[in-house]
Amino acid sequence: MSRDLRYLILADGSFGPETSKTANACIRYTPQNVVGVLDTSSAGRTVSQVLGFGGDIPVVATLDEGLALNPNALLIGIAPSGGKLPAPWIDLLGRAIENGLEIWSGLHTFVSDVPELAERAARHGVAIHDLRRPPPDLDVARGRVREIAATVVLTVGTDCNIGKMTTQLQLLGGLRRRGIRTSFAATGQTGILIEGRGVGVDAVIADFIAGAAEQLVLECARDSDLVLVEGQGSIIHPSYSGVTYGLLHGSLPHAQIMCAQPSRTAINNCEWVKIPPLVEFIRLSEQAAAPLRPAPVIGIALNTYDLDDDAA
Amino acid sequence: MSRDLRYLILADGSFGPETSKTANACIRYTPQNVVGVLDTSSAGRTVSQVLGFGGDIPVVATLDEGLALNPNALLIGIAPSGGKLPAPWIDLLGRAIENGLEIWSGLHTFVSDVPELAERAARHGVAIHDLRRPPPDLDVARGRVREIAATVVLTVGTDCNIGKMTTQLQLLGGLRRRGIRTSFAATGQTGILIEGRGVGVDAVIADFIAGAAEQLVLECARDSDLVLVEGQGSIIHPSYSGVTYGLLHGSLPHAQIMCAQPSRTAINNCEWVKIPPLVEFIRLSEQAAAPLRPAPVIGIALNTYDLDDDAA
Repeated sequence: MSRDLRYLILADGSFGPETSKTANACIRYTPQNVVGVLDTSSAGRTVSQVLGFGGDIPVVATLDEGLALNPNALLIGIAPSGGKLPAPWIDLLGRAIENGLEIWSGLHTFVSDVPELAERAARHGVAIHDLRRPPPDLDVARGRVREIAATVVLTVGTDCNIGKMTTQLQLLGGLRRRGIRTSFAATGQTGILIEGRGVGVDAVIADFIAGAAEQLVLECARDSDLVLVEGQGSIIHPSYSGVTYGLLHGSLPHAQIMCAQPSRTAINNCEWVKIPPLVEFIRLSEQAAAPLRPAPVIGIALNTYDLDDDAA
Repeated sequence: MSRDLRYLILADGSFGPETSKTANACIRYTPQNVVGVLDTSSAGRTVSQVLGFGGDIPVVATLDEGLALNPNALLIGIAPSGGKLPAPWIDLLGRAIENGLEIWSGLHTFVSDVPELAERAARHGVAIHDLRRPPPDLDVARGRVREIAATVVLTVGTDCNIGKMTTQLQLLGGLRRRGIRTSFAATGQTGILIEGRGVGVDAVIADFIAGAAEQLVLECARDSDLVLVEGQGSIIHPSYSGVTYGLLHGSLPHAQIMCAQPSRTAINNCEWVKIPPLVEFIRLSEQAAAPLRPAPVIGIALNTYDLDDDAA
């Protein structure tokens, strides 16, 4: 994001290491664009006191306190289940718009489709950015990734919210420092926010998941030799496995990087689905890719934030 | 379909055993509702001469010839790749509407969203039925199928257009004749057309595939002890595997029925993807389901239309 954006991040009631993924990634990778976080339950603390990183950015309890920090944009930093816009937020977003704040949102409910908010945004001349809005003219996948010269690497994981985007962003920095022409194919709202482009593959029409991934990888390959694709979901996730599989078969990676959290033994919020042992999970993931293009797991990224140094 | 519908089926240029799935299923299961088929390339023949079933229903070359058969609805009976509305059809559909024909469509492009067609339909007081339009208020899957008493059986297949719907419709008839309270959970436009209800799971927002399947199975289970779920795609299909996986993990079947066509060795239109031997494919399919609910393959349905009796 090259523009002079000063976000007040809305994470009300859910600001924390595991519960506010978009907020946290934005604070980690573009802290210069964050003036404050709105969360009643952590108000009065600093971001670093809540997350363990992020420095002295303040957490405030009300929109008025947030406005005093001089933001020019409100970023929705948490993802309610199903990506729906909670009704109480409509009033809050409306007041933000009336105070001249742009809205940045990755919800499935498009903020710019809510008539009263669209109307207010038009009246006050501020923009609403719906990060998940799919590009027009999507189509089904046709395996065209096989025709490009670039190497494609996809992060996969045992569950959601386990480090698939973060792993790619860390690799991106390291590979670019070594002079390798590398691009990041963002597939979720947070990645798109950080990278400035991408496709929210979980928000496209189901038949076009793989097609959207294919189109994105082709675009990213135009000026790079290595394309790092942000993974989504998990092949065993009851809610999101379709997206995971479509992304795998549309991006046709040469290799996978497996993201896992050693302390997690079941799918978050779906405790009835146990996560198989990592070696078994890797085998399942390689089998899922193999009929289209063999994609061995060439690396493992462990999320150890909840372990002490010895255990990690 | 209990209404007095008299379809003229549009299958122009593609009427045949493998190329006009919606037309063919409608002719097989509700022939009393079909007055004719519009297809320039087969015009002058009967449906049975083209398909091998369907009796004396005529194939005509023009809309005017079709109108002479006294239809009250035009059904789009073929699915262009990506489900888009071909531009030349807009004029044809417009003329059908002006002649008082309802439109029934399973395309991804919603006919009722094409302004000039919506306007004409309103003016002439005829309805446009977009079979793939998703129900409102979809949500992500939550594993609620585990709470119902009914047994759930899903058809899966090595490829698209291989018999997953037909197998369930044949089973439905047989099981009902034996007095078993059985329902058919239609998940594609043709199934919805035949059954009169269902959800086109390939047309919902990607994150909601499994949720849509879950909602449909819960509905079907209300008045039946056995729910036969229409499968979609294939776990190795480059374009549609996401839908296949979402449907598998959302409907949480107790058992799978594997559909295959012995003469087919690669995915249709994606010849670079070879279909593994059936026994290996069954293993992959059982592994795909197992982490959520074990669903053994309890039957195999072979599509042998292109084999002679001895080979079959």
